Amino acid sequence: MKKIRLGILGFGTVGGGTVGIINNTIKEIERRLGRHTTIVIEQIALRNLTKKRAVDTSGIKITTNPLDVVNNPDVDIVVELMGGTSLAKECFEIAIANKKHIVTANKALIAEQGNELFAEAAKNNVVIAYEAAIAGGIPVVKAIREGLSANKINWVAGIINGTGNYILSEMKQPNADFGKVLKVAQDLGYAEADPTFDVEGIDAAHKLTILASIAFGIKLQFSKIYTEGISKITAEDITFAQQLGYQIKHLGLASRTKDGFSLRVHPTLVPNSALIANVDGVMNAVMVNGDSVGTTMYYGAGAGAGPTASAVVADIIDIIRGLEQPPQDRVSGLGFALNSLKVEPVIDITEIECHHYLRCFAKDKKGVLATITKMMSDSNISIDNLHQEPCSTNKNDATLVILTNKVKESSINKLLEKLASFKDIDGEIQRIRIDSLE
Amino acid sequence: MKKIRLGILGFGTVGGGTVGIINNTIKEIERRLGRHTTIVIEQIALRNLTKKRAVDTSGIKITTNPLDVVNNPDVDIVVELMGGTSLAKECFEIAIANKKHIVTANKALIAEQGNELFAEAAKNNVVIAYEAAIAGGIPVVKAIREGLSANKINWVAGIINGTGNYILSEMKQPNADFGKVLKVAQDLGYAEADPTFDVEGIDAAHKLTILASIAFGIKLQFSKIYTEGISKITAEDITFAQQLGYQIKHLGLASRTKDGFSLRVHPTLVPNSALIANVDGVMNAVMVNGDSVGTTMYYGAGAGAGPTASAVVADIIDIIRGLEQPPQDRVSGLGFALNSLKVEPVIDITEIECHHYLRCFAKDKKGVLATITKMMSDSNISIDNLHQEPCSTNKNDATLVILTNKVKESSINKLLEKLASFKDIDGEIQRIRIDSLE
Repeated sequence: MKKIRLGILGFGTVGGGTVGIINNTIKEIERRLGRHTTIVIEQIALRNLTKKRAVDTSGIKITTNPLDVVNNPDVDIVVELMGGTSLAKECFEIAIANKKHIVTANKALIAEQGNELFAEAAKNNVVIAYEAAIAGGIPVVKAIREGLSANKINWVAGIINGTGNYILSEMKQPNADFGKVLKVAQDLGYAEADPTFDVEGIDAAHKLTILASIAFGIKLQFSKIYTEGISKITAEDITFAQQLGYQIKHLGLASRTKDGFSLRVHPTLVPNSALIANVDGVMNAVMVNGDSVGTTMYYGAGAGAGPTASAVVADIIDIIRGLEQPPQDRVSGLGFALNSLKVEPVIDITEIECHHYLRCFAKDKKGVLATITKMMSDSNISIDNLHQEPCSTNKNDATLVILTNKVKESSINKLLEKLASFKDIDGEIQRIRIDSLE
Repeated sequence: MKKIRLGILGFGTVGGGTVGIINNTIKEIERRLGRHTTIVIEQIALRNLTKKRAVDTSGIKITTNPLDVVNNPDVDIVVELMGGTSLAKECFEIAIANKKHIVTANKALIAEQGNELFAEAAKNNVVIAYEAAIAGGIPVVKAIREGLSANKINWVAGIINGTGNYILSEMKQPNADFGKVLKVAQDLGYAEADPTFDVEGIDAAHKLTILASIAFGIKLQFSKIYTEGISKITAEDITFAQQLGYQIKHLGLASRTKDGFSLRVHPTLVPNSALIANVDGVMNAVMVNGDSVGTTMYYGAGAGAGPTASAVVADIIDIIRGLEQPPQDRVSGLGFALNSLKVEPVIDITEIECHHYLRCFAKDKKGVLATITKMMSDSNISIDNLHQEPCSTNKNDATLVILTNKVKESSINKLLEKLASFKDIDGEIQRIRIDSLE
């Protein structure tokens, strides 16, 4: 039986999960592979030689130097699960030069350096596979690059960070504010000690960069993504949104517009009627709208040993199937021929048009509401819905919640500036974009 | 540029959609194909030569004899969209003998004759691709065969018939009974004049046969599927289910149990907390649970020209990518090496264990409820939930709704027999299985 030999870089959660699948499921995988081929783990690079591991590593060479693995002539496929963008990139470059295929879960590296890496991989006829980099075990990269390959994709919208979704879901519970829930998420291991990457949307922006590229056939443009986190969302906003028939979700949104592509990560009010509004906890879901297929959605666990390793091993199986395929026949790294990747403008966030949720605290006295609504009408912004109730924290204030008509972001920004200088408004004004995902 | 030439059998909705995609999206598809290859339509077999068509067929050879197409040496890939199992099978056999790959949306043919057809195709090194046969445009065959290939699949549960789901969804409206809603569905073109295939679950059973095979690596066993339709579901049942926190969905369910595989299509109470409970109208959704990935779900349009043709053309693109791949490296027809397909027992419906919803009309008089609950306790069936209210149609009766504990189907059957002979129960007793899909 022919053996395909893996070299694994990084032996944390996902590395352990990958070895676990190979150890436990190899018989089922051999049946699927349907040829006289099996998968063995040749070498693992890890940091701590003495740490106890949950999975059996007997018979596997162990090193603390990742470069040993990418230079090992007995390794056919490199599985990069270290994360980071500098040593990982060096490993990619050496692996590619050594004609080794790569499987990775490293969204940051692909999003930030993928354009060069895919070009280098193509020159050397090797594959960089990264299903595990987006939405964990959900085969959404495969769905977009292959399953929907007959479509011109119109838009992609996804809950692509489980930590953020967990926090927003838990904030629906009574007395749960952002800080409290973040602490629980950290205690449960869902959020890092420094949660910035997750809660400020950087992780989601990495994933959206890749999704946009494979959906539209454009270059990876991480720096063009508008990114806004969830740390300013209050429990009150979540409650008001629910009363109005919406859930607040931290979405990655990529869409094709007549003026260019819109690429953004921000909290979004999504109507309850949209299936994705019901995706709670650490789960991920990605909606993809194509010109022929209409709207589809892919749901599952976005992180964790088993789900992420499921995607890693599926990529390994795909690579094995393609080993003797002419390289030009393989699915291209970004789904489209590299030389055809378009460089069309990404439109500025100020140019997008949508409905908005505004929430502010205003002095509860005569004329204030009239002034605010006049400011809105002067800015040509009309009101779809207005709700006023006593402010829960300041008895002199009223809380105002306004849903606006569909209006350009630049107009809302001007209105927000005017409102901010209005002395009868206390504190910051909350603004959350609304998307019906239709 | 190399041309891959299609021969299309059948020019109805999906045939038109397929030609439409090739006409309109070929430039995007060529970018995805990423090689000097394009797709052209060589020939179409259709029934009515004079019928006006919405899509441009200029330059395409037209015939009324499907056998012309499968025997045409200028056709590389046969796209079978005629439906039916006799002429279609003949066309498959000739196409395979002529070494032509086949793309089909024909679930009945695959479910009923697939074992022989895949064997014949493998001998001749050709592919039979059938993504369009299940859940329209949702790439669920690809997800199971490739995206989740690292998993031992535990169970699959799906809304895989859009007509049935439309009817059950519409029956939530006031004054909507099965007959009325079916009529509307027929007027809208969602249901056939003879709706048996859809509402009695035969279409879903065809699809479930295939899903079970690719999920578990077992032979296609259409005759072993337990199939129950939705025509006996009343609007009242739907309302009671909702009051208890459930939706009634017509599910195809395939699961691995310690005693064998369970394969069944029947109406099912699904808790609102399950995402699939929120899938309404003609939409389809398939949940797949794997040992590593956990539960995933795939959602989208299950029928219609665009969605189904989206799957057809994706299959064509896959076949083109694999043209020069060694045949043994391609994904096997049923996802597992044909010679490894297991023949494990399919357990009888009487052997399954689940919670049940029971609803009956009983004389509204002293002692009746006591008799019924005693019958239950004598049968070792306990009550999770009991609701009684005046019967809406007979003032002498009460309506009883009971949710049972988890119990073997054979025990429930015995109880139903006893209840049926109890003189104080009027009419038939409704029994619907409950599945929490966890």
